[in-house]
Amino acid sequence: MGNCIQGCKDYFSRQKNTNIRLTLPVVCFVWQIAMIILFGVFIRYDEESDTHWVETKAHENITSDIENDFYFRYPSFQDVHVMIFVGFGFLMTFLKRYSFGAVGFNFLIASFGLQWALLMQGWFHSLDPHTGKIYIGVESLINADFCVAGCLIAYGAVLGKVSPVQLPIMHSLGYYGLAITWVLYRPNLHQSKRMQGSVYHSDAFAMIGTLFLWMFWPSFNSAITDHGDGQHRAAINTYLCLASTVLTTVAISSLSQKTGKLDMVHIQNSTLAGGVALGTAAEFMISPYGALIVGFFCGIISTMGYIFISPFLEKTLKIQDTCGIHNLHAMPGVIGGIVGAITAAAASESVYGKQGLINTFDFTGDFKDRSVLTQGGYQAAGMCVSIVFGVVGGAIVGSILKLPIWGDPADENCFDDEVYWEVREPTCKSIQHALFDHITKIVCVLLKL
Amino acid sequence: MGNCIQGCKDYFSRQKNTNIRLTLPVVCFVWQIAMIILFGVFIRYDEESDTHWVETKAHENITSDIENDFYFRYPSFQDVHVMIFVGFGFLMTFLKRYSFGAVGFNFLIASFGLQWALLMQGWFHSLDPHTGKIYIGVESLINADFCVAGCLIAYGAVLGKVSPVQLPIMHSLGYYGLAITWVLYRPNLHQSKRMQGSVYHSDAFAMIGTLFLWMFWPSFNSAITDHGDGQHRAAINTYLCLASTVLTTVAISSLSQKTGKLDMVHIQNSTLAGGVALGTAAEFMISPYGALIVGFFCGIISTMGYIFISPFLEKTLKIQDTCGIHNLHAMPGVIGGIVGAITAAAASESVYGKQGLINTFDFTGDFKDRSVLTQGGYQAAGMCVSIVFGVVGGAIVGSILKLPIWGDPADENCFDDEVYWEVREPTCKSIQHALFDHITKIVCVLLKL
Amino acid sequence: MGNCIQGCKDYFSRQKNTNIRLTLPVVCFVWQIAMIILFGVFIRYDEESDTHWVETKAHENITSDIENDFYFRYPSFQDVHVMIFVGFGFLMTFLKRYSFGAVGFNFLIASFGLQWALLMQGWFHSLDPHTGKIYIGVESLINADFCVAGCLIAYGAVLGKVSPVQLPIMHSLGYYGLAITWVLYRPNLHQSKRMQGSVYHSDAFAMIGTLFLWMFWPSFNSAITDHGDGQHRAAINTYLCLASTVLTTVAISSLSQKTGKLDMVHIQNSTLAGGVALGTAAEFMISPYGALIVGFFCGIISTMGYIFISPFLEKTLKIQDTCGIHNLHAMPGVIGGIVGAITAAAASESVYGKQGLINTFDFTGDFKDRSVLTQGGYQAAGMCVSIVFGVVGGAIVGSILKLPIWGDPADENCFDDEVYWEVREPTCKSIQHALFDHITKIVCVLLKL
Repeated sequence: MGNCIQGCKDYFSRQKNTNIRLTLPVVCFVWQIAMIILFGVFIRYDEESDTHWVETKAHENITSDIENDFYFRYPSFQDVHVMIFVGFGFLMTFLKRYSFGAVGFNFLIASFGLQWALLMQGWFHSLDPHTGKIYIGVESLINADFCVAGCLIAYGAVLGKVSPVQLPIMHSLGYYGLAITWVLYRPNLHQSKRMQGSVYHSDAFAMIGTLFLWMFWPSFNSAITDHGDGQHRAAINTYLCLASTVLTTVAISSLSQKTGKLDMVHIQNSTLAGGVALGTAAEFMISPYGALIVGFFCGIISTMGYIFISPFLEKTLKIQDTCGIHNLHAMPGVIGGIVGAITAAAASESVYGKQGLINTFDFTGDFKDRSVLTQGGYQAAGMCVSIVFGVVGGAIVGSILKLPIWGDPADENCFDDEVYWEVREPTCKSIQHALFDHITKIVCVLLKL
Repeated sequence: MGNCIQGCKDYFSRQKNTNIRLTLPVVCFVWQIAMIILFGVFIRYDEESDTHWVETKAHENITSDIENDFYFRYPSFQDVHVMIFVGFGFLMTFLKRYSFGAVGFNFLIASFGLQWALLMQGWFHSLDPHTGKIYIGVESLINADFCVAGCLIAYGAVLGKVSPVQLPIMHSLGYYGLAITWVLYRPNLHQSKRMQGSVYHSDAFAMIGTLFLWMFWPSFNSAITDHGDGQHRAAINTYLCLASTVLTTVAISSLSQKTGKLDMVHIQNSTLAGGVALGTAAEFMISPYGALIVGFFCGIISTMGYIFISPFLEKTLKIQDTCGIHNLHAMPGVIGGIVGAITAAAASESVYGKQGLINTFDFTGDFKDRSVLTQGGYQAAGMCVSIVFGVVGGAIVGSILKLPIWGDPADENCFDDEVYWEVREPTCKSIQHALFDHITKIVCVLLKL
Repeated sequence: MGNCIQGCKDYFSRQKNTNIRLTLPVVCFVWQIAMIILFGVFIRYDEESDTHWVETKAHENITSDIENDFYFRYPSFQDVHVMIFVGFGFLMTFLKRYSFGAVGFNFLIASFGLQWALLMQGWFHSLDPHTGKIYIGVESLINADFCVAGCLIAYGAVLGKVSPVQLPIMHSLGYYGLAITWVLYRPNLHQSKRMQGSVYHSDAFAMIGTLFLWMFWPSFNSAITDHGDGQHRAAINTYLCLASTVLTTVAISSLSQKTGKLDMVHIQNSTLAGGVALGTAAEFMISPYGALIVGFFCGIISTMGYIFISPFLEKTLKIQDTCGIHNLHAMPGVIGGIVGAITAAAASESVYGKQGLINTFDFTGDFKDRSVLTQGGYQAAGMCVSIVFGVVGGAIVGSILKLPIWGDPADENCFDDEVYWEVREPTCKSIQHALFDHITKIVCVLLKL
């Protein structure tokens, strides 16, 4: 069938060339060779992952190897790693015929992005002024995975509508999903409506992604917070917040249907909104019940986003957001920014303790005299800058991706793995076999075999 | 098809109202708001997850953040978390058309239950007499997940036969699966026989659950044992015990069929019995070969349970136990209780060392002079109390759940996701499309396209 | 259908007896009882997992339980454990109708193999000369899982072509997959060609295995390296190497197809080659860019192996390698051996530091005066010995497995779960139901219901 239908498709729709046999290998090879050269010039092991650590230890009076940052952060790193590759990858397999693209391109983007992130973060945040090198350790790997998460969220907005050549371009320039998908608006996307839904098995499969994201979000939010009580508290807050989100998501999902049936789209996505919203404030002393309250509202807002806002965005603003990242990441992210700014501004010595306040907000060195109000203000400003960057940057990147050279699929071929993947089955041959099998079966039944 | 058949079903079977549009949101909202209030009144961070830990450390002469309990227990906590949400969730997806209910309601119950468990455990075990507060840390989260495990096992017995409104009710009152399913006996359950089996893909899918449970059971049994050798030994014992269980499960499964073929039901479930049976004794000095022996017998008994005891329970005692929790949890649990009591009673200073005996059994404070025999006796008594609670409590909860107000499905609609979930496919519309596709295919084949 | 077709199959192909009802239980029981006896005689807890650790600590001036090896290695152990059971298990589910055999027999072999590995490694590497005992701890469990990995790779070569009775035999004697499958050459394997391919869903399912292997390979390569910087560096190197492999795998896969489409076989397997190739050198100071270079070439070589070498091996050398372990493990393994030997020989005090060099290569005790050149030479020699053992040992084991007593499937029944598993569906009964359902549907459609 695949071949037959593909043949018909090819005959009638020649306007898009999805041949990526030249462009994709070139992008991959050039990029990877560039990475090797740049890593050779810039990247080195940091002092805790270098064989000279034995001297560092002696110098800093560290008595045990267990004080290596590896043991503080590696378990959380691996949880984050699972979220990136299994969590995001499988979450996007909900489409009936885009599992290969969901898991496979997620894999490609993440492998590509983490190398780039190590360099970019190094250049802008931790380039050693004396040696001109970037020193990496387990915390760098976690930060690289965090950047990749941003890329993959953007992929969620354009899932099924872009080519694997566009993805590395998109992610090396920036990753502002909603604005990109707005620029890439496809007026005739309804032509692949048939492929845009989920089927029973793809919905169950996507829950693998949802659950690994949900379970490991406490690790995500605690992976690079302060050693000791900081990591401990961030994990507890995220755990509680997410539990609360599940209940309100179920409640709103049930309310939205005539007979109270639940919708898998909500369960797959909105249950995660609490984790997003605690991204900034997880380490703060927001109290266990504070975490529950954040989760409570995130579940409601995110689920209502899927019910009311997504259709509105598509109809009015021409934003075709395949995975609904607006509801799962954008809105909860803004909530998180606001919660973070307010809770920072409201922090006090009576709650945190004198030293606790300094540790939590890093009021050391140049920031020794910063007040919590200033801190809250900076955080709010940071959120606004992010939104502006997202909209402007996304529009620019989207315009570049609109060039007709990237091999993206025609409107009627979106959400279909057959465009970029060898799909072995079913072929005309196998249909013949299937027909013979069917006849055999019917004969069996008639003969009461 | 779905819609058509649903229409027919609705027409002929009006006796049960499965509309949960009012009840489910009300239960979720009321419960979650109650949780927020109770958490606000009772729950606080413990000293290791509070910003004041910097002072605690100084006070207790702790030199490194790595001594925070977080680093002893968080990796195990995350493994337990995976068991609860992925392990139990996917294990129950074996039914051909109940994956959404299996994973989705598992998710709901667990999110609901862990909050309740934090409160209940706090009130009964760790309420601070001076402040009236419950102080939580990573060990509390693990204990909450443990409680949830009990709830989810109970869900296994009634899987496919209850509504999502009944589940929170059931789990806030108690969670005694076998007695509940006995009270909820459905004489006409054979009417949904058609839906009760597994299909090829659902059986393979369920193995995701089995394997995550199997792999992480060493973390389950070692998560809250003593720091140091206690956690180390509990993990080794569980690892060995489970390996042994697999071999005897395979052996008995093969013996039970005419040509020695294996049965996925046994592989999915009985391979886990060893982990259950070491729940009590994992930390004890039972020796590596002792762990193998426990696993050896658990594999045999649990698999024989599926072959002989489950049909007997259903026919004679009217216990319809969807997942066979009697074979996987009840019998191995009793074995575990007995093994625990005997190995405790047999513990000696020559094997454990003087201090080792004190550490392992916590013979400190009020229990300083307790003998190992007394300890073994208490453990045996505890097991008996649990069984009595299970039977009596379960019967009471079951009677409450029998009230006709909870929106549970009719006998002929059991084990079917369409009762409580929007199942998008296949609809009459999509059948038309499929028919047209079929015709296209046949034409293709005939024309040798 | 199953029953009908099985009936026909049985009628026409009586030449192979696949009844394993006697042999499989006997092998399992005898083996497990032998293990219990041997564990009883030989295996004891090591000093860090024994209750006497409290005295060991006092004796060695260890101040904190966190210095127990459990906390250094248990998180990595659990990652390795996931690779063994979920990673290898699901990677092999790509065949359209061999998921039960892939996951289930993988489970059996691994449970069987890890016990045997604990004994074998103990006898040859760590038998205490005074007590005659083997003392095990978390590092022993990791090493046992490593041995099991070798067994499971061998299983990949013969997947679908052997009986569950042959598997324990094969793995207690040795595990040299390629030579075994060469001896077990089936000239008429084309008779089960129909079953040898993948289908859409089985390919997506297999990605669960791929991703868990890929994500946790850093833990695999760092699990038993030196505490501190050794584990830290091994994880970083493997992480980077694997990222690089993904890009070149995608590039070569795309180049191999007319229109640049990607092939799931390559993505499922070749993306992992970098992890294999760093098996030896992960702990060395190969530099981050060095790791990227190794990954770069492994992705290319492994993918080209699937495109060019596998068909050649099958046609010319009669090696039928179901999973392509030659491309994923053999070639990258040889690369890894060479990289390891060269980087060892090139190690210098200027790069490693004096103490760092000693720690990394364990130049202590008897090996105090060994030079890095000697070390490199030994490693190269070790690789050659492994290859010779693999070929000769595999040929011998293969010959034993060729005896006609093990219940292996006939050529036309290979790659089919129905030989060794109860496959409940579809039966003639269920076909009847399906037919009635179909008719109902068509009527629905016609009546515009």
